[in-house]
Parts: sequence; structure tokens; C-alpha cells
Amino acid sequence: MMAADTKARAPARPGEFELIARYFAPLSGEGSFGLADDAALVVVTPGKSLAMTQDAIAAGVHFFPDDPPRTIAMKALRVNLSDLAAKGAVPRAFSLALGLHPDWTEAWIAAFAEGLAEDCRKHDLLLSGGDTFRVAGGPVISITAWGELDAADYASRLSARPGDRLFVTGTIGDGALGLKVRLGEEPYCRLAGAGDLLARYLVPEPPVEFAEIIARFAAASMDISDGFAGDLEKMARASGVDLEIDGTAIPFSSAVMEALSIPGAMHAAISGGDDYQIAFTVPQWDCEEFLRAAVASGTRVACVGTAVEGAGNVRISGKAGEGLSHGRTSYAHF
Amino acid sequence: MMAADTKARAPARPGEFELIARYFAPLSGEGSFGLADDAALVVVTPGKSLAMTQDAIAAGVHFFPDDPPRTIAMKALRVNLSDLAAKGAVPRAFSLALGLHPDWTEAWIAAFAEGLAEDCRKHDLLLSGGDTFRVAGGPVISITAWGELDAADYASRLSARPGDRLFVTGTIGDGALGLKVRLGEEPYCRLAGAGDLLARYLVPEPPVEFAEIIARFAAASMDISDGFAGDLEKMARASGVDLEIDGTAIPFSSAVMEALSIPGAMHAAISGGDDYQIAFTVPQWDCEEFLRAAVASGTRVACVGTAVEGAGNVRISGKAGEGLSHGRTSYAHF
Repeated sequence: MMAADTKARAPARPGEFELIARYFAPLSGEGSFGLADDAALVVVTPGKSLAMTQDAIAAGVHFFPDDPPRTIAMKALRVNLSDLAAKGAVPRAFSLALGLHPDWTEAWIAAFAEGLAEDCRKHDLLLSGGDTFRVAGGPVISITAWGELDAADYASRLSARPGDRLFVTGTIGDGALGLKVRLGEEPYCRLAGAGDLLARYLVPEPPVEFAEIIARFAAASMDISDGFAGDLEKMARASGVDLEIDGTAIPFSSAVMEALSIPGAMHAAISGGDDYQIAFTVPQWDCEEFLRAAVASGTRVACVGTAVEGAGNVRISGKAGEGLSHGRTSYAHF
Repeated sequence: MMAADTKARAPARPGEFELIARYFAPLSGEGSFGLADDAALVVVTPGKSLAMTQDAIAAGVHFFPDDPPRTIAMKALRVNLSDLAAKGAVPRAFSLALGLHPDWTEAWIAAFAEGLAEDCRKHDLLLSGGDTFRVAGGPVISITAWGELDAADYASRLSARPGDRLFVTGTIGDGALGLKVRLGEEPYCRLAGAGDLLARYLVPEPPVEFAEIIARFAAASMDISDGFAGDLEKMARASGVDLEIDGTAIPFSSAVMEALSIPGAMHAAISGGDDYQIAFTVPQWDCEEFLRAAVASGTRVACVGTAVEGAGNVRISGKAGEGLSHGRTSYAHF
């Protein structure tokens, strides 16, 4: 901590401990001592290991300061759930470091906590602990989440092999085009699907329940967060293969399809970020059984290509590949 | 992510992946895939559980933006190691969310990483993963750290019982008075021990190796981070006891002793934060064996009081107790 004058507190607001007790302790469970301790006790199921991930989001970078606090909370949590699903882990708990601007209000925190609570109920998740602090800009939300899995099932992005087929869950580009709607860009705002795109930008929909199938079948796997094309490059490089993508097989929602006639929309859809879907490879001999399991799961999957011998290149055929050779293919964090 | 113009990158600086590979990957180990994956695989020793903690520090709140990056890194890590030690856990690994101001330099990151590396070597710790992101203010550093322990040995702050003796490790007040030196306050800056106080403010010295003894003997335990008096109040309230403190037994360093003649210094020493020592109780019947083990460990411990029947009050006798009834007894995070 620092100078005494930074300790000023607006009189009408509850203190840190009241806030935690009122809004966050109800999300905690066994081992977290009602969030009244400095740490949590994590008892791992015998024989299981943990996948552990930490992703932060900051106002003005990953979301707009005036986005609804409920959706900010969901985004902060789901960008982490997306990583866990991609590794094949069933999410269990998370801890939260919440950095607030000095002008925070209780109403903001109540709505933020309600967003977390909704996802906790949906995915049977617990808040284990964390930290609250002031920050000059803000809010800044750093979440560490963990899930259980068998260590042998952990799906890294490094294990694609030539011959593997490449799949993606869900649809690509909704978040990136939703950002254009959020920014008020014409003509995106006037699309019939503008609301759907915006909703996906605000609240990602990672396929959390698909983790079990990833654990069972995936060779390499990663979530698509910085852009479809660029993230596949990362997988290709990490695995030491090339990836041949059939551009016509990339799955788009009807809202993205509607937008694709706009110049530049295709590039944005496949190089912009915020998809939070999973790209993964399955060895060819296992694809039939995988597809049976995937269909039964209800999660949409599309086969978009094949891993071949190579040195980390991604080739995308058709319209989707045009224009990608120029300009950035994914989001840079700095 | 957000608008395209936020993607600008200064040409002379390395990108995120080069930075990670150059400065942070050398701190990682098995299960972290050279920090090239989105998560880490944490294999817990069979029979052990994890203590998990997350504490964030922000420029302008917990440290000064122009503090040396090496000491900022150490502080960010050690405020978490302090929590683990207080729970009785041997630290194993941590993940790091590093939010940087757009003006970051490679030299800053190199020195920051070297600070982490020193502590990783000292405590046999691994960096498991994390995230880098831009933030308007900055830097903001959110670390999640975990250590192993037997679940039955986890020492919460909720388990002090009447009759327990209360101990603290190390010395109290160095960090709080070191902040006054850092702020250039007279006459603190002219103390012979000013340099020692400043060093403790910049780099806490939590008794990491004492975790084993905490696990073996402590009933209740917590780290002192927001102020000796206020943190003891938290323990008293959480445990449902009163704590009777012998003010003359509070351990002070020679630098703090020198400062105590300054008006207000005693209050600052026992209500200011940044101690990162451990306060813990030991059942009276176990104190003899505990003290033998503590002496053998080489960590300084002092018996400062006793838990008695009560409802969460702390009474401090002598000079240390004077003046505490007025004003704040600990740091508020907002």
C-alpha cells in the first residue's frame, strides 16, 4: 500500500469485507472459509490432475468501461473457461482479482457478482478466493481458473501430427464483427443480425461441456481467442506441422454470413479475436468415433482442414484465404 | 480486444511471444509447455492438497511506478508466498497476469523477470503460465500461487481457541515505516536505519521456510499484510475469540526501535501494512515442542499474547495500545 490519502473511502459505500460477504461469499464453497481467509484449500479428486489458466481483461482493452457489469463478469470468467475446455478439463473453481476504479459503485459490483453467479450455477463452479484492489484505470479483472482431468488426456496445442483432421466448435467471426457493432461502425450496425453479433462480443459462448470429448479424442487443442487464422498459426508452429484449411468449410453463423458482403468483413471474421471456440485435431483413424460422440453431444463441430508435414504454416483456400497474406492475422496483446 | 488503433506496437520492441520466450519461459518447468500453451498441467503429489492464493499489486497503490522493476516483481510474488506460508503450504508454482502500460520497455521487463527468477531459484518455484495485457494505468501484476500441504494441516485464520498462545514471526512495522522513507517524510529519511526500512517496504521477507512448522503446530494462522493490529482483529473475529496482546512483546527491528521516538511512529508501525510476517496461535500444551522446533528453524518468533473467550476484540497493552482506539487500525483495500 501507499500514501495515507489513498485510503479515503466514500462514506455511503460498504467496505471491502461487507462487499465480499454480501456479493462474493455466496459463490464460494468448501475449502474457501466463506472467503474470510487469505487462501483456499483445494482438494483434488484422487487420480486427477489440474489444468490451470489465468487470463485478465481490462477496461478499454478487452471491454468498454460502460459495458454492462454482468456481461463484463461473464466475459472475464468465460475467457478462462474457454481455455479449460480446450485442454479437456471440467472446470471446478476460480479465483478473482478485481481491480476497481476509485469511483466504483455498489450497484456495479452487485450486477458484476450476479453475472458470475449465473455462470457458477450453470457450470457448477465455485469462487475460491482472490483479492480486491484499487487501480487507476479500471476495472481490471484477473481470473485464475482450474479444472480437473486425467493428466494423460491434457490436450496441448503442441501435439498435432500430420494426417490429423482439424475441427472447430461453434462459429467463427461473431465476436470480431460484434465489436464493430459495439463501436457503431456502419454498415454493421444496420445488419439484421447486429444484435446477435453484439451479444457474442459481450458474452462469449465457449463450449464448456465439450471438454470431455476433447479429453477423449483431441490430439492438439487450443481455444480461438486472438483470431482463427492467427491462432491456427500458433498451433501449427507449436506442433511443427502445416495446416491446410478449406476456406469454404469454416463455420459461420447466419449473422456473419449476412455481413460477409461488406468489404473487409471476411478478413475481420477470420483474423479478429473474441471467438472463444475450440480448434483441435483428431487422428484420422479416430474421426468416425469422434464424430459420433460430437453429434451426440449437441455441440456444433466442423471439419475445416488437415495437418500435413510442414514447419508451422497455415494455408486457407478460397475467399477466406484472400487478403490474409497482407496485414495482421491475429490480435497482439501489446 | 477492442479497436484496431489499440493494436499499434512500437517497432523496436519485441512482440509478446518473443518476450515470453526470452524472459519468462526460462522460469517454467514440466507441465507448462514452455509457456507456449494456454494453460498448465498441475500434477499434485498423491495424498497432498493445494493451498491457492491470488493477490494483485498495482502501480500507485501498492508500489510506485518508478520503483525498481526487480523489487516490484519480488513484492508481487512474495505477497503471495506470504499467504502460502501462513497456511502451512510449501510453494510450488505460480501464474502471472502482467498488465503493462503502453510505454513499457524491454529493459523493464528484463529486470522484472530477473526479480522473479531470483525468487524462483531461492524457493524452487516454477512459473506455470499466465497472461500479458495492456492496461491504461500500470503496471498491474496479478499473481496466483499455490503450494502443497496435507489438507488436515491447512491453517485458516478461523481456528484460534481460548487458551492458545499468539506468536508472530520476524519484526513488525518495518514496511509501514519504510513507506514513509519512500515518500521522503521527515524525519524518517534521516534515520540511521532508513535504508533497512526502505528495503523492507520494497521487498517483503515472508518466512517461506516456516510453512512446515506452521503446518505442524499452528491452530489459526494468517499473514500480516494490512497492519498488525487490524489483521489480528480479523483473526479474532473470524475465530470468535478475543486476543490479549502484550504491547511490550511486539518484536521490532533496531531500525523501527530507532524510529519509535517520532510522534505517530508507533501507531504507524502497528497499524500500517506491508509486514508480510505470520501471526499464528499454538495450543498451550504444544508450545514447548513448538518453541524447540522454531528455534531450530532459525526463524525469529515472538510470543505476543493469548487468545481468550470473547467476540472478536483485540486489546493491546502498554504504549503500543495507546492511540489505537482512535483512527484506522489497518489498511483498507478501497
